[in-house]
Amino acid sequence: MRLITGLSNPTIKYLRSLRDKKHRRREGRFLAEGLRLLTDARETGHLPDMLVMAEGRDPHPLLDTLIEAVEAANGDVIEVSEAALSKITGKDNPQAVCGVFAEFDTGLDRIDRSSAPLFLVAQAMRDPGNLGTMLRTADAVGAGGLILVDDCADPFSVEAVRASMGAVFTVPLAQARWDEFQGWLRSGEGQLVAASLREPHDYREAPYVAPCFVMVGNESRGLPEEYEVECDLRVTIPMLGRADSLNASIAGAVLAYEALAKLR
Amino acid sequence: MRLITGLSNPTIKYLRSLRDKKHRRREGRFLAEGLRLLTDARETGHLPDMLVMAEGRDPHPLLDTLIEAVEAANGDVIEVSEAALSKITGKDNPQAVCGVFAEFDTGLDRIDRSSAPLFLVAQAMRDPGNLGTMLRTADAVGAGGLILVDDCADPFSVEAVRASMGAVFTVPLAQARWDEFQGWLRSGEGQLVAASLREPHDYREAPYVAPCFVMVGNESRGLPEEYEVECDLRVTIPMLGRADSLNASIAGAVLAYEALAKLR
Repeated sequence: MRLITGLSNPTIKYLRSLRDKKHRRREGRFLAEGLRLLTDARETGHLPDMLVMAEGRDPHPLLDTLIEAVEAANGDVIEVSEAALSKITGKDNPQAVCGVFAEFDTGLDRIDRSSAPLFLVAQAMRDPGNLGTMLRTADAVGAGGLILVDDCADPFSVEAVRASMGAVFTVPLAQARWDEFQGWLRSGEGQLVAASLREPHDYREAPYVAPCFVMVGNESRGLPEEYEVECDLRVTIPMLGRADSLNASIAGAVLAYEALAKLR
Repeated sequence: MRLITGLSNPTIKYLRSLRDKKHRRREGRFLAEGLRLLTDARETGHLPDMLVMAEGRDPHPLLDTLIEAVEAANGDVIEVSEAALSKITGKDNPQAVCGVFAEFDTGLDRIDRSSAPLFLVAQAMRDPGNLGTMLRTADAVGAGGLILVDDCADPFSVEAVRASMGAVFTVPLAQARWDEFQGWLRSGEGQLVAASLREPHDYREAPYVAPCFVMVGNESRGLPEEYEVECDLRVTIPMLGRADSLNASIAGAVLAYEALAKLR
């Protein structure tokens, strides 16, 4: 373990730069925060290259386990001031530990359509909180993966990793353009389902079939019409109020839990 | 209409101060952004005291309607620079218009338990985005209201109003301490339902009864045990992955849509 003092140290600058997508891409690294999340990562075989904790933190046996594991794997274990940790994580009240992880491969070959009855698909989802929440929901419904289609928020952003509550480490994740996803999907079995107002089935009565790919679109614009017509099943969720749409991650969860109940 | 130039003008400072809860409370005013949201507000009988728009905005007939309505009600219509509007809303890319509204009364007498089969309850929900999303979901399921119990995020914060997508104007909203809510709830009909691991029913098979109050707890801690035991019905949502919880607003939506399907 080594101690780094001062806010302008190159390591602190490197860590802080990982809050920025451009730097994450260049380094192939991302940040995850919090003892619980880092413990989940460790238990699923993901150790950080670098483990960073605040001086004056409370001792914790799980943190000791984590330190031992990172040191045994020749990782870097670093103590910094609370101010430096705040600067790294961008939070006023930083969780007392964060780690730097190698980004995963997110090719479509990460997804095994025989591994689960249900998969989630997000198209042009721009909010990292929504994207992380989709990952968390994907874990909860036992989905075989989350596929990010077109220009989505970065799943390795601090906000997405935080909202995923560790699911970024446990849920297979793929990124693809629509054409690429379509080619992959149609090369095997798979029912593509989306919420729609176009000849829709009531989502409670619809004929879901495994492997079922539940897709939601962009937060403002929804799915493009030409994507919607490519779906095998279009369903409608009741909207009894003034608004005509749900939050995208809410719509995804309501559909995913309905499909799960029918497919289990 | 009047034009305000410069970032240090007192009106700009006043508007910016409304991003802060303390100032909102003192002034009894809150900010809402975006032409669509302000149009929804107008159509449901809520006009801003003050309407603020960027110079150099694109013209829009709905904006003209809004300006006429605010001026007819002796409201203040103001043009500012794009930089000033960014400063007010805290967004880099501000929507071209925002309004200042009087905060509503949020007493429990705002809730009419005979008005709908379903109501949502959030306990100690700290994230304004989750809270706004709960409002949006409450609108979608036709809930008779959202009741905020104990120390929740401010429903009049810019983030909550934004996430509500206008539902802050359409869904009856109440704020109460737990004891006060309990007293009110037990003075009439009402089934209190929460997700729980304590003698739970499967949420798909549970006996929901109108008026049904679906409650979710704090994002990190869930519901206090002593609140859970006061519930009339405890249900379980399948969790097939590593995690043992969903995002609070997701859990609320999954339960609310299930209860709605059974109670419609």
